[in-house]
Amino acid sequence: MSRQRYAVGIDFGTESARAVLVDCADGRELGTAVYRYRNGVIDERLPEPDADVLLEPDWALQDPEDYLRTFQEAVPSLLAETGADPADVIGLGIDFTSCTMLPTLADGTPLCLLDGLRREPHAWVKLWKHHAAQPEADRINAVAAERGESWLWRYGGRISSEWFFAKALQILDEAPEVYDRADRLIEAADWVVWQLTGSETRNTCTAGYKAMWSKRDGFPANEYFAALDPRFEHVVDEKMSRHVVPIGSRAGGLSGRAAGWTGLLPGTAVAVANVDAHVSVPAATVTEPGTMVAIMGTSICHMLLGDELATVDGMCGVVEDGIVPGLFGYEAGQSAVGDIFAWFAESAVPPEYHEAARRRGVGVLAVLEEEAARLRPGECGLLALDWWNGNRSVLVDADLRGLLVGMTLATRAPDVYRALIEATAFGTRVIVDAFESAGVPVAGIVACGGLPERNKLLMQIYADVTGREFAVAASTQTPALGGAMFGAVAAGAALGGYDSIVDASRRMAHLGHERYRPVGAHHAVYDELYREYVRLHDLFGRGGDDVMTKLKSIQRRAAGAVRSP
Amino acid sequence: MSRQRYAVGIDFGTESARAVLVDCADGRELGTAVYRYRNGVIDERLPEPDADVLLEPDWALQDPEDYLRTFQEAVPSLLAETGADPADVIGLGIDFTSCTMLPTLADGTPLCLLDGLRREPHAWVKLWKHHAAQPEADRINAVAAERGESWLWRYGGRISSEWFFAKALQILDEAPEVYDRADRLIEAADWVVWQLTGSETRNTCTAGYKAMWSKRDGFPANEYFAALDPRFEHVVDEKMSRHVVPIGSRAGGLSGRAAGWTGLLPGTAVAVANVDAHVSVPAATVTEPGTMVAIMGTSICHMLLGDELATVDGMCGVVEDGIVPGLFGYEAGQSAVGDIFAWFAESAVPPEYHEAARRRGVGVLAVLEEEAARLRPGECGLLALDWWNGNRSVLVDADLRGLLVGMTLATRAPDVYRALIEATAFGTRVIVDAFESAGVPVAGIVACGGLPERNKLLMQIYADVTGREFAVAASTQTPALGGAMFGAVAAGAALGGYDSIVDASRRMAHLGHERYRPVGAHHAVYDELYREYVRLHDLFGRGGDDVMTKLKSIQRRAAGAVRSP
Repeated sequence: MSRQRYAVGIDFGTESARAVLVDCADGRELGTAVYRYRNGVIDERLPEPDADVLLEPDWALQDPEDYLRTFQEAVPSLLAETGADPADVIGLGIDFTSCTMLPTLADGTPLCLLDGLRREPHAWVKLWKHHAAQPEADRINAVAAERGESWLWRYGGRISSEWFFAKALQILDEAPEVYDRADRLIEAADWVVWQLTGSETRNTCTAGYKAMWSKRDGFPANEYFAALDPRFEHVVDEKMSRHVVPIGSRAGGLSGRAAGWTGLLPGTAVAVANVDAHVSVPAATVTEPGTMVAIMGTSICHMLLGDELATVDGMCGVVEDGIVPGLFGYEAGQSAVGDIFAWFAESAVPPEYHEAARRRGVGVLAVLEEEAARLRPGECGLLALDWWNGNRSVLVDADLRGLLVGMTLATRAPDVYRALIEATAFGTRVIVDAFESAGVPVAGIVACGGLPERNKLLMQIYADVTGREFAVAASTQTPALGGAMFGAVAAGAALGGYDSIVDASRRMAHLGHERYRPVGAHHAVYDELYREYVRLHDLFGRGGDDVMTKLKSIQRRAAGAVRSP
Repeated sequence: MSRQRYAVGIDFGTESARAVLVDCADGRELGTAVYRYRNGVIDERLPEPDADVLLEPDWALQDPEDYLRTFQEAVPSLLAETGADPADVIGLGIDFTSCTMLPTLADGTPLCLLDGLRREPHAWVKLWKHHAAQPEADRINAVAAERGESWLWRYGGRISSEWFFAKALQILDEAPEVYDRADRLIEAADWVVWQLTGSETRNTCTAGYKAMWSKRDGFPANEYFAALDPRFEHVVDEKMSRHVVPIGSRAGGLSGRAAGWTGLLPGTAVAVANVDAHVSVPAATVTEPGTMVAIMGTSICHMLLGDELATVDGMCGVVEDGIVPGLFGYEAGQSAVGDIFAWFAESAVPPEYHEAARRRGVGVLAVLEEEAARLRPGECGLLALDWWNGNRSVLVDADLRGLLVGMTLATRAPDVYRALIEATAFGTRVIVDAFESAGVPVAGIVACGGLPERNKLLMQIYADVTGREFAVAASTQTPALGGAMFGAVAAGAALGGYDSIVDASRRMAHLGHERYRPVGAHHAVYDELYREYVRLHDLFGRGGDDVMTKLKSIQRRAAGAVRSP
């Protein structure tokens, strides 16, 4: 029997990080360890002893020491739990939420760890869902549109306030002394790899999807940055790097210090950083064009590979080498899916269903799913626009809001639940249609994330609505598995890993047995309803009727947020 | 001290009847007695011993003996409770739901009391909400439109399936032997007066609002009825009467038999029959043009008087002498108001509010009202179309359905509740605007019914939305009070009553002290929201976007009600 070869994947999430030990031969997951961040999401006040420093609305920070504690606690636990010999662990890969970024000194020390800056919120890590940089994003978009920047279309025509330069520019705008002090501005993903290896790298995935970098054109021109703010002109050369390393590369070997934290051996191969959604694609078995990966949870990310660069209506971004080297990686998204169901369960379901759930020891959505599953397509009599958190793809409009139509005095909660599921499925179909219209085919879909295992009705409805077969990734922790796969690639075949992520995916990634196939009669009814959905989608989403933005502005005025005109 | 003079009013409702004893001098209510119909609403099966006879969907029948039991039980209880001397009761008036109608023999015996017919559903009383005569209503409308019948516009261009000839025609269509056997087809309102007096009368209110009769043109021509069905040509002359008596008239004196039932004296004046909504107008102090009466409960009836005959968009009907003799009585309506709130409370409010209600011993809507009252106009961020039960005025379309727009992940039940209240207020404003556009002024509004006393937030929102002051009738049982007032008018001034309903209203009807006055700043915000409401109202209600009817037809097909095309 040949010697075991393992890889470790670490998925840095929003509230916690998860480390998994994987068999390089077949992707078998031998163990998992979770570290819940001590300081979690910092969105009201800084951690003790500086808890008197309050944050403004829309802020969301993290503590970089939570990432280091992940190495120090989760990885040793994982090794202890599995009994794996560190000598058998050939590689380590991480994935991260993104864009999560921080300012550091030249040696990588986060500014928030400096005595003089720890009470300065801008010195901390800005988490992906830090939404306070909207004015900067607006400026980034306005100046780009004005200058006709050629990269703008690669991002659906609009840069998000969540992305790198909006956050960097907010530091400059609001805390120029922090900006000055920052030798480096860096994605947390790259920062943790730096901490593991001792050398700073930048990866093609976060650079491409969140920092407007492309393999062919690099970053936007200095003139563009200067037009945003003269002090911002040299942000890339002063605080970032134009050396961007393709995903699938080896960032370096584990440093002695990091070996001490983790219990792994010094020199263990470490992969360049990657992003949770993107690393899930090969972990869901997809390394070629034609199959979409839908990462289905609170929101949905739609990931797709293409041979060519195409303009897709309202996508989040397209990056060459962004997901799999040698291919264009497309990302689109629905800003709320599971979040809508959670909202519904909490805010609009009457007691009888909660009582039934309690009696049976299941969640209220499970009870509703059972009742909703008894309805035939169209039988609920309702139609919704699934914009409770705006619309990312294809409309790229955060001001849009939800709509529900068709209620009668006989409408019950399972009817509404089914309509909400259907609406999110229609939203996915709009994205699939946008890709196909742009010449990027979507023949089938592989789902991963939390929703597919929780909600079989939802999966069948998605198949029926899109007219496409849905498979489900075998792993329930695809990001961590993907991280481990990239760790095995960083080690390379010579050490018992793989020379490419395609090879790794072929051996280490698997699909579950379940297939959700569209039922012809259901698809026909949903075709009818989809026509209604698309008409309302275009009416309310493309400016034909602006009731949603009007309601938002009237509401803001009423709440006292802005003065009456 | 002069001798007391009393009148009795009896309000025949859907589930029960209510008798009230009123002081003729000032309208003071001395006592109330309620009789809950033994057989209630008969909508699934006939009463015992014929409970094996099942009814089709949309049927709603009543038992005429429940009306007689009302006389036999409620009136004696009322006299006993109040200790009133029957000699002091000078008059009796009734009001009834309408159109509630039945087939009888020439002597008034209901066909359902005949041995050979008691198991025949068509022999029973058809309650106002019997909705199974839609095919007949469709025929009535189609033939009227085809022939250009001049009376059609007086009913908003459409006759309801609830009305007299639709129900009569359904008997002919489905049970011609019952139709043949019926010597008389009569409103239950007129039938109970017949039972009291021994002589058959027909009143201008039900004839005008429910049977297409007008003072100037009488009933539709025989040729029209023949065009519906040759056997229907002489329905008026064979089974009804062209002698229609103005409301406010004396139908006759109480018969000996009815005196025995009630404990009142034989010969006591009995008023001609009337309808619950219509009799409420003078009971809410309104006997002149300019003030609308809104009867606010599960639905809203909007009653208004005019000097002239005007064409008002989508009204339910306009009848000369229909409410107050000498004036044109206009009726419009919203098909669901309190019903929508009840639906919401039952179907879409999460447990926390129900628990708070239980803790505090109040209804869940009271808890929601308190929270919704803390929101400023527009602050909920939502807008609804209040069509959960279709739209009566001004769109006259039962197929329309509810719509709610503006939801975010932060939307909570009190936001939705407030939006639903606002939507019904916008619905009332559309009706007010329709009257004013037609030259029928609405300077102020008097509310009565169950909602005004239960929901002060709602009343203020209605004032803010319509920009009109709302007063509230002092009586909480305006229909029964109105019945008693008409009883006093039937007796006449010589006997201690009044010679006209105007005189009776001046003395016997009162307003409560509370006034709801529009707040300028609120009205301004609601003006903005109303523009949005009207635009969506016209878009979805006037054929611009037919998603609601499409959803209904897809739903019917899915439920197996009709076959796929």
